[in-house]
Amino acid sequence: MVVGISILLDFSGVAIEKFHRALTWEKLFEDAIEIGRMTKLQISSYQFPEIRTGDVTTSGNGGATAFALLSESHISVHTWPEYEKVVIDVFTCGSHERIDSIVSFFQESVKHSELRITKLSRGDTN
Amino acid sequence: MVVGISILLDFSGVAIEKFHRALTWEKLFEDAIEIGRMTKLQISSYQFPEIRTGDVTTSGNGGATAFALLSESHISVHTWPEYEKVVIDVFTCGSHERIDSIVSFFQESVKHSELRITKLSRGDTN
Repeated sequence: MVVGISILLDFSGVAIEKFHRALTWEKLFEDAIEIGRMTKLQISSYQFPEIRTGDVTTSGNGGATAFALLSESHISVHTWPEYEKVVIDVFTCGSHERIDSIVSFFQESVKHSELRITKLSRGDTN
Repeated sequence: MVVGISILLDFSGVAIEKFHRALTWEKLFEDAIEIGRMTKLQISSYQFPEIRTGDVTTSGNGGATAFALLSESHISVHTWPEYEKVVIDVFTCGSHERIDSIVSFFQESVKHSELRITKLSRGDTN
């Protein structure tokens, strides 16, 4: 029996100067939740201060992480400015229509060159 | 280029009376983070007060949701007591060894009859 759907969005070639701030993601999550007619329980985020590549640490704008806890499950994002990558997970037990509206929202909002979308049914162990 | 790994754990037939409380999950997450030698940024949880099946609402112990924001990404859980199901996501850019130790920890801690484990590389759009 399926209890929800995970949608995994892997973005490459992101115009990262617009998407490396945690507060930007909090705002995008607020908009996505409204568009998907979801119910927010809590939004948290964290701004990493530095970029680390292997053993080399460069001071400047690091990646961001944000998470929205919803009545209908969650949305998360992690960003890697040094690789121009953004990874978003949407996990919801809402309707397909609402899920599609959230996916379209992120697809249009996050300027990118490549995107891989993976959809997985959850809760089914058969 | 891969920036992390998602491990999706779908448990069925869970002895849910032991796993429907949000605070239980906060404790399990603390233990998992220690075992995986991860760095906790924040743990949040929410207890749903009622079980809803379709249009019917039964008062009693509802499901739980918990989320751990880590320096190495995140762990989330959602529970459906009415279906004896628990769904855990572990997203990490840590080592395979650390990931395996966390997966083994949840596999042993959550008493269940069936488990589906899905591993996905993240960040690669090719």
